[in-house]
Amino acid sequence: MMIDRLAVIGVGLIGGSLAMSLRRAGVVGEIVGCGRQRENLELARARGIIDRYEHDAARAVAGADMVVVSVSLAATGAVLSAINPSLGADTVVTDVGSVKGAVIDQARTALDGNFANFVPGHPIAGTEQSGASAAFATLYKGHKVILTPTTAGRAVAVGRVREMWESAGAAVIEMDADRHDAVLAATSHLPHVLAYALVDALGSRDDADSIFEFAAGGFRDFTRIASSNGAMWTEICMANRQALIDVCGGFAQRFEQLTRALEAGDEQAILAVFSRARETREKCIIPEANDRD
Amino acid sequence: MMIDRLAVIGVGLIGGSLAMSLRRAGVVGEIVGCGRQRENLELARARGIIDRYEHDAARAVAGADMVVVSVSLAATGAVLSAINPSLGADTVVTDVGSVKGAVIDQARTALDGNFANFVPGHPIAGTEQSGASAAFATLYKGHKVILTPTTAGRAVAVGRVREMWESAGAAVIEMDADRHDAVLAATSHLPHVLAYALVDALGSRDDADSIFEFAAGGFRDFTRIASSNGAMWTEICMANRQALIDVCGGFAQRFEQLTRALEAGDEQAILAVFSRARETREKCIIPEANDRD
Repeated sequence: MMIDRLAVIGVGLIGGSLAMSLRRAGVVGEIVGCGRQRENLELARARGIIDRYEHDAARAVAGADMVVVSVSLAATGAVLSAINPSLGADTVVTDVGSVKGAVIDQARTALDGNFANFVPGHPIAGTEQSGASAAFATLYKGHKVILTPTTAGRAVAVGRVREMWESAGAAVIEMDADRHDAVLAATSHLPHVLAYALVDALGSRDDADSIFEFAAGGFRDFTRIASSNGAMWTEICMANRQALIDVCGGFAQRFEQLTRALEAGDEQAILAVFSRARETREKCIIPEANDRD
Repeated sequence: MMIDRLAVIGVGLIGGSLAMSLRRAGVVGEIVGCGRQRENLELARARGIIDRYEHDAARAVAGADMVVVSVSLAATGAVLSAINPSLGADTVVTDVGSVKGAVIDQARTALDGNFANFVPGHPIAGTEQSGASAAFATLYKGHKVILTPTTAGRAVAVGRVREMWESAGAAVIEMDADRHDAVLAATSHLPHVLAYALVDALGSRDDADSIFEFAAGGFRDFTRIASSNGAMWTEICMANRQALIDVCGGFAQRFEQLTRALEAGDEQAILAVFSRARETREKCIIPEANDRD
């Protein structure tokens, strides 16, 4: 068996879907879930996502050869500290966090001797739902998973995590954690900041209600990500502060340039940006169904 | 018959769909199309959208009791000037432009004595397609159409345009042109500027290709409107410059506030904006199918 005992800490959409796809692929023996909410874990067991569960993370990972930590960024450090004493010498630990540099810093401290078996990961997939009830076996099919192995990481551990995600149907890419955080700041974290900023700027106006009444499809698409969990996205933005501040600066420059062009009535400058952006988007963005970050 | 002869200047998605829905509702006698491209007009005739066509706008409106000008903002003034000599004393003229103040200014000059029969209009509907081939009879069903009658406008003209759109299945709302332009600047024009600015800011980076490679569904939704026609959106932004500059300022303020909070590591300030924005969006934005602005 590729994985004899898998421990999934946090059986939500991300962890639960991974468990389901590995079960379906027939590459996993026992699956142990861990979380705080009994109801969610009972549901996960009823759906066959996990075989049994523990509320204590250290107990959940005992005897596991693969541990997937799929909890919020803010909780990840504490989970790693809690499981560290119970990890076997060859137990591979991976996570699913949206920011990698901050997680690696936490893991280095929390895992000490086991840090070599830690493989930072980030599946670029998800939906707007959460919890074990939302999990489904094909979530990762055709999606990218980024691994950001550290220089301390054992090659065999990286290989096992890669193999696991490939069994789940994902395409695995390796890159530096810094690179990952810069890329995600640009394509995910900054758009969230912009969407939240826009909705809040409009929402704070006296005439907010009558403004939103006339919002059409374009506005709904544009602001969909502003319906994401605010606490989770605050954590992500805080954990990726430096890279995010950098891309905010790049955006602000371009936006200011457009505002100045509007003020000056410089039609050609506006057209240049709009046309170039359209061309870029048409060239670079391939439409994909069932794809949420 | 509610409309004996309808002239549609510009038989694209917007004008063509209106013609189709009025025909289906049985409220129109003859429909005369007008445009520059023979191929598009032939197609419109073949699809039964129009009965016949003219390339000359003045000839197209001769004998019409209702004229719908559905050409680009930049072309609207010239079309109104061209048709003015051929309009009957009771011929009602309306348009579909995304900006109303600028169109009214042009109409006042172009139509002189006939300005009282001009009813500025804006259907909040559309798709990403264009041309007579994309037109369909149910485009306006359940969508809003904003009319911004001028103080010079005859009540009977406004009533006839309202009746026309209602026959097409739309919900008609009247408001001031200034109010319309402020609302649309906020919910449509500013989001376009933001999406174009973001895509262009990222596209200008050396590592643009590898960044977009990891763009997921959230990014695609967010930037969908950056695939809109750049020339058309430049026209719209230029025509609504002042209102757009105002909302750009409000957005910039909120965005700067968030950037400063990131720099200061002020988690509570970020959470406050994100949570408030999410609440606003959940409360104010009602999902609607088949809705593009």
